[in-house]
Formats: sequence, structure tokens, C-alpha cells
Amino acid sequence: MSDESRHDTPGLSSQEFRRYGKQLIDWLADYWDEVAETSIQPQVKPGEIRAKLPPRAPEKGEDFSALIADLEGIVKPGLTHWQSPNWFAYFPANGSLPSILGELVSAGLGQQGMLWSTSPACTEIESHMADWLVDLLALPQSWKTTGPGGGVIQGSASDATHTALVVARDRAAEEHSLDALVAYSSEQAHSSIEKGAKVAGFRHYRTVGVDDRLAMRPQALEEAMAADRAAGRVPTFVCSAVGTTGTTAVDPVRRVGEIARREGLWHHVDAAYAGSAMICPEFRALQDGLELADSYVFNPHKWLMVNFDCSMFYVADRRPLIQTLSVLPPYLRDQTSESGQVIDYRDWHVPLGRRFRALKLWWVLRSFGAENLRRMIRLHIELAQELSRRIDADPRLERVAPTPFALVSFRHLDGNGATDRLAVAINQSDEVYLTPSKLGDLSFIRVAIGQTQTEHRHVERLWELIDQLA
Amino acid sequence: MSDESRHDTPGLSSQEFRRYGKQLIDWLADYWDEVAETSIQPQVKPGEIRAKLPPRAPEKGEDFSALIADLEGIVKPGLTHWQSPNWFAYFPANGSLPSILGELVSAGLGQQGMLWSTSPACTEIESHMADWLVDLLALPQSWKTTGPGGGVIQGSASDATHTALVVARDRAAEEHSLDALVAYSSEQAHSSIEKGAKVAGFRHYRTVGVDDRLAMRPQALEEAMAADRAAGRVPTFVCSAVGTTGTTAVDPVRRVGEIARREGLWHHVDAAYAGSAMICPEFRALQDGLELADSYVFNPHKWLMVNFDCSMFYVADRRPLIQTLSVLPPYLRDQTSESGQVIDYRDWHVPLGRRFRALKLWWVLRSFGAENLRRMIRLHIELAQELSRRIDADPRLERVAPTPFALVSFRHLDGNGATDRLAVAINQSDEVYLTPSKLGDLSFIRVAIGQTQTEHRHVERLWELIDQLA
Repeated sequence: MSDESRHDTPGLSSQEFRRYGKQLIDWLADYWDEVAETSIQPQVKPGEIRAKLPPRAPEKGEDFSALIADLEGIVKPGLTHWQSPNWFAYFPANGSLPSILGELVSAGLGQQGMLWSTSPACTEIESHMADWLVDLLALPQSWKTTGPGGGVIQGSASDATHTALVVARDRAAEEHSLDALVAYSSEQAHSSIEKGAKVAGFRHYRTVGVDDRLAMRPQALEEAMAADRAAGRVPTFVCSAVGTTGTTAVDPVRRVGEIARREGLWHHVDAAYAGSAMICPEFRALQDGLELADSYVFNPHKWLMVNFDCSMFYVADRRPLIQTLSVLPPYLRDQTSESGQVIDYRDWHVPLGRRFRALKLWWVLRSFGAENLRRMIRLHIELAQELSRRIDADPRLERVAPTPFALVSFRHLDGNGATDRLAVAINQSDEVYLTPSKLGDLSFIRVAIGQTQTEHRHVERLWELIDQLA
Repeated sequence: MSDESRHDTPGLSSQEFRRYGKQLIDWLADYWDEVAETSIQPQVKPGEIRAKLPPRAPEKGEDFSALIADLEGIVKPGLTHWQSPNWFAYFPANGSLPSILGELVSAGLGQQGMLWSTSPACTEIESHMADWLVDLLALPQSWKTTGPGGGVIQGSASDATHTALVVARDRAAEEHSLDALVAYSSEQAHSSIEKGAKVAGFRHYRTVGVDDRLAMRPQALEEAMAADRAAGRVPTFVCSAVGTTGTTAVDPVRRVGEIARREGLWHHVDAAYAGSAMICPEFRALQDGLELADSYVFNPHKWLMVNFDCSMFYVADRRPLIQTLSVLPPYLRDQTSESGQVIDYRDWHVPLGRRFRALKLWWVLRSFGAENLRRMIRLHIELAQELSRRIDADPRLERVAPTPFALVSFRHLDGNGATDRLAVAINQSDEVYLTPSKLGDLSFIRVAIGQTQTEHRHVERLWELIDQLA
């Protein structure tokens, strides 16, 4: 076995990494510079990309330039351009240039932060960012990692909500059959609540009715719980949404929290999308009552320019979380852990391994600064209000829900057919991309304004298309 | 609202991204060039890194050069150097330079591949890579996405195993109380099996005894199941390990599979670490019987030079997986999905959002080529055999388990105290890093050889240290 020189390493030598890495930095910068002008949806049919790939992996290493060529020839034609300023579909998943560099360095350092000792930098910067965000968003001070609670980065709000459901389930399962436990959310809550409840093994998941603003009706929650108790079931978990996925409706967090506390349920608040808006004081009244929450999730990867994945999960008390998720085999025993002085984030979620995701969050918060993040959120919300005013003033259209944040939900007054056709026609323009949706039997169109590069002119062009095609 | 020029963007302009991005590419190349000579463990005390950070996020954006300076001043002193060729701790989490560039481009493109339509490239390249790996590792052909089964990238083996447990649980829960379900693995199985079972709501988790090679005893499994059935419980899930975490012991996959099939259990195979070795035909006999598995996980992010995270999860039949994990709200309805022609990976795991992780896997497989990947695995295993021979020949030391792959498990014959002191002394050299562990009451030392840059001379130096300090 002879030692090979580092620069003859198969794959890429360090010299080649420098060369191709810089080429890819330019390639990505060009991508971001030009994405606004790119056709937003790919024109590929199912199977078309795979058909361009050889049926088997190569035996011999290929030159890296061939891989970069395939970025243009194979990958790019198969992309849906989430980072375009003309992206109004789903919720945003807005990245930013500082965040991309954070992800690069995180990958390059190859840290695995399961324990404090396996990467003190990963662990401590993550805790510190979680605490910075408590102040930036005015979350309860006791949620800081320096207090009884704490925050952790998870991969997605689905993961975080599932975690909350599991902790709630285990607490209730101490005294009750698993078959009897019930989880609740509004009928407008995100699918991740229902999915998380299914995955966590809840046999009973109830959707609670909403008022005319599509917010959960506390009385309906109380009635549903009473009916379950009468049938011998055990109300265990309730989720309040601050910004539902359908229409960004806002549940009455304080009222739900009071009911949950009185009845002994775990109260989880899902602010996956809207949580980022709380960096602006004027929106915080919408989540009044957070001190009555047991857990909370919001996604900097949705609307705070941190590229996916970066979902912040907070608990008011970290003890039940750690008690549920801690399993300690000998190969993970660690002196520093046993001292109790440190956080070992392996016990804060399902996976053991974890990336150094705090780096990109840190870089976004520092390179933008709080004032630019507020400015961006306010810009998106103002653009949404402006679009709402135009829709309200148009005799052909109407909004189907309030616009508390930057999602505009509207329909064509000629009915579902006209609404569906309008959505299809706008998307077929291939200049912008939005999501056709349903509220019960009612078709409507979701316009989510929140990409990093989205400016006034992009929403203007969207309105022109709506106006023209309606 | 006036449009700002793209180059005045807060955060980073495209021009600045080019400049700082290239600087960081060089910084990372230097890091990889020098990591072998770096002190492998950080010299920081708990809280020391946080103490260097301001208590609050900045109001105004900072210059990016300040962030890069803090990489040197704050981050680097807090790193544990997983990518060092002197890393022998835990299992490897080996990255590589092509993989890092794949992660960079994935972050830059900002794809979110929850549905085929939200990123056809992400979805189809992922399916294609899963199928390439079926051939490369000689997994059952029916596990290809073009057949009844299929593979998907998850974040970690913990996530994958948890997913398998959930699907198994739901199948059993159709007829039985959740309180009655039982999961089994060997007493040597990874903590993620126990944790996954806890998270999935199994009230009963049994560890099955092992033979003198630390492999599960099928008869002990049968006895445990019989005892549970006699007590009214329902055997539901069994995990075979191909390469346990403690000592890389290999369970009898075929025998366990036969028992599982006969008794109606879900049979999951955890090859998180050792699965990568199956790229070499000579190791495949160790997982004979895979056609009797319902699911399988292995981590290219452990030993196939794909940087964390990239865990491959396969199912023999994708229908029960999708049935358990599919929840379809209106905003996720999609014409292409409903056509049934495509894979929507949101239904293959707990999270909804997903990164374009297939890109780095594709780049590693292509830039190295299968023959270099085989060469690397064989080198690591040969280095481990060589170290084993030296330990076997040393009157002070003995191995506590066989070395089927590249993990060497040994102890000092003077007992636990001497073994523990030896591990501490070796780690305190700060030249190499390995893991002290326990087998029952017996202390031993785990040496996992598998970093991308690890060569003969690094293991030579490790042996010198062992020899000197024993």
C-alpha cells in the first residue's frame, strides 16, 4: 500500500476542487442573476430526465467537467425555480447568497454535532442562534437554552410537530392506553399535524371547526374534547396555527392555550411560515398567549432567507423532550455529557447525526442584520396588501380569506371553473408560478409573496397577468 | 417602493458572493489539505464559544469578511475534526471534495423536492441513484424504483429505521391494540432501534441474546417471541444488523428473515455502516438473505464519501410505506401526482420538504467511479486487518470481537482500568481520536478506519501510539 499524493486523489484533488469550486460559485451567481428571466417550470415529462442517465454507475471516475456540463444539460431543464422572484407557489422556501455559503462551509467542515463533544462549535452556535431568535421574535424568555426551555434546529416543521406529538403521547401513555389518545387541530391546519399524529401512532385525530376568518373555534375544540372524554378517549395534544397553510388563518393561541392547560393537553404552536414575521413587533399580537404553549415551530427556511433545511423547534420545558428521546448506549457515553454542563442535541429529535446548520443561520442574521430582515418581511407584506386591494377593487374577483401576512387567497366570482382556469392560464404563462387550491368545495388561488429577490415589479407583472387572464 | 439594484442587495450582492465564495473554496481546500496536521479535538470548555458571541443579533448587516474572520477565530477552535485521516472514533462520517461541491450546488439551486413536479430533477436523479446502488451493491432487483420496491434518501439511519417501525406498527395496529406490539433486535443493535421503537410508540422492545460472535441467536428470538405471544402481546418488527455499532457483528439475516416471514413480522435490515462495503462482491455473503427483508438502510454518508446527510432507505414493497405516510391536502394535489406516473417522495418519510441530496451522491459515484470506491473500502478493511494482526500478536492486548469490516475492537489484558487508561492516553495525544466503549461490563476500544484521507501511515502512527502507551 503506497501512500498516494493528496493531489492524485481519485474524485477531485485539492487543486481541482479549487478550480471547479470557483467555477461553480460563478455558475450559481449567474443562476441567481438570471433566474428571474428563466422559464419558471420545467418542460420535462415524467421519465425524461432518467432517460438521459446511463443505466449503471460508471466503473471509472469521470472528469469533473462532465458533471458540470450535465448541470446545464440534464439538471437545469429539470428544475422548478423556487428561488425565482416570480415564485408565488406553496409557501416560499427562500434562500440567500450568505446562506448558500454557510451550507458550503458546513458541508466542507463535515461536522457531526450529535453530542456537544463531537462538535462544540455546532452545538453552542446553534443554542446561541436559538436564543438570539427568542429576542428577535420576542418569544417567551424562558424558552432560551439558558432557561428551562430551549430551541433546536430540526429538518422541517413536520419533524418538529411530530416530535411534539411524540412527547405529548408519551406523557399521556404513562396512564392511558395508546389506543385512547386524541390529537386536535383546526380543520385548516397543515397536513403535517395529521401526518405527524398518524406517524406518532395517534388513532384519533380530530379537526376542529373554524370561524368565518378560518380560525379555530375554541368552543368547537371544547365540544370535541368533551365528546371524546365521554367516549372514554383521552385528549392529549392540540395544535394552534399561527398562519395556516391554506390561507394563513390565525388560531386564538391564548384561548387554546388556556383550554389545553386546564384540560392537561400538550399545546403546540405551528408558526412554520408566519413565525418569521414576528421579527416585526407589529405582528406579534397575532401570537399573543405563547407563554401558554408547550412547544413552537417556525421555519427560517421558509421566510427568513435561510436555505432549506432550517426549522426552529422550541420547548418551554426541555425535560420531557429529553426524557422521551434519550437513549444512551455505551459508545455514546461521554464525560462532558455526564457532567450536565452541556446540551447534547441528539436527545432533541429523532435522528442521531446532525449537520452544522446553525452556521448558515448565523451568517444570514449577521450579514443581513435584523433591520434588513424586518424590511424584507414588511416589503412582502406590503406587496401582498397592495395585491389584495387590487383584487378587492376588481368586480371579477374576491378574496376568500383575510391577508394577515403575505399570502393572498382569492377566487374568480364566476365560480370554480373560472378560478381553476385562471390559475392554469397564469401558470401556463410560465412567467410566474402560483398554487391552485380548495377551501372545502371552493376553488381558490394562493399567491405567496416571499422570495428573497421578489420586488414590486414582480408582483406588478403578476397582477397584469391576473387582470389580463381573468 | 423602488427596486433596488441586485448588486446592492443586503446580505451579499452577486459580485460579493463570487468574491467571498471563491475565498471560502480556497479556505476549505486549505482546511482539507491541513486537517491531518490539526490537533484533532478542540481545546474548548463548555460555554467558551458562546462567550465569544454577542448576546444579541446585530441590528445592521455586517461585512462578510467579519464572518469569515470568525471562522478562524470562533468556529475552528470549536471543531472536532471528523474529516481528519486520524479520525478513528464512532463510525466515520466521511465526506469528499466532489460531495461538498454537490452540497454547494444543491443549496444554491434551492430545490424543494416534495413532489415530482416541485423538482423533477431532484426526484428522478434520486430514484436513479437508488437504482444504481441496487446494482452496485447487488441488492435485490425488485427493490428498484422501476419495480415494486424502491429507495429514497433520508436524513439518517435513525430516521429510516423509525420509518420502518412506523409502517410495521400500522400494519399490526389494524388488528391489534398499540399497547400489545413488540419490536425486537439483538442486544448489540444500535440505539436507533430502541429509540425508533420508543418514538414509534412501541411499549415493548426486546433485546435478543447473541452468540460468541455477538450475532443474534435465532433461537433466542423465537423464544422471546413465544413468550410475548403467550402473554398476549404481538410480535411486530424485528431488525437484523449487518455490522452492529458496538463491534460490527453480523446477524444471520436469512434465518431472521425466515422467522419473520413465518411469524408475520416486518423484517428491517440495518446496514447503516457496513452496507457501503457491499460494493465489493467478497463481502456480500455477510448479508445473504436480503430477499427476505421488508426494508433496508445504509448510509453513504458513513463510508461512501458522501457528506452527511445521505441515508439510503429501501423497501421491498412501497405500497404499505406510501399508504402509511400519505396525507393529501388540497394545496399538495397535483395533476402529475394523480396520474400515478411519478414518485412523490413526500410520501416516503416523515418530513414534507426535502433537499436535492441526490446531486452529491451522483457526483461522488461519477467522479470516483465504482472501482475507486471499491479500492477505498478494500484499503480500509485491509488496514483494519493489519491492525488486528498486530493486536493479536501483542501479548498485552486482545480483540474482543471479530473484524469483518474496518472496525477493530480490542482491550488491554490487564483489565478495564488499563483499557480505559489506554483509550484516554491515546486520545490525549491529540494526534488521533478513537472511542472507548463497553461490551457488557468489559471495557474496550473501538478503532473505526474509514475516513476519505486515511492511508497506511495514519494507521501506522495509531499503532505506534497504542504500542507506546499500552
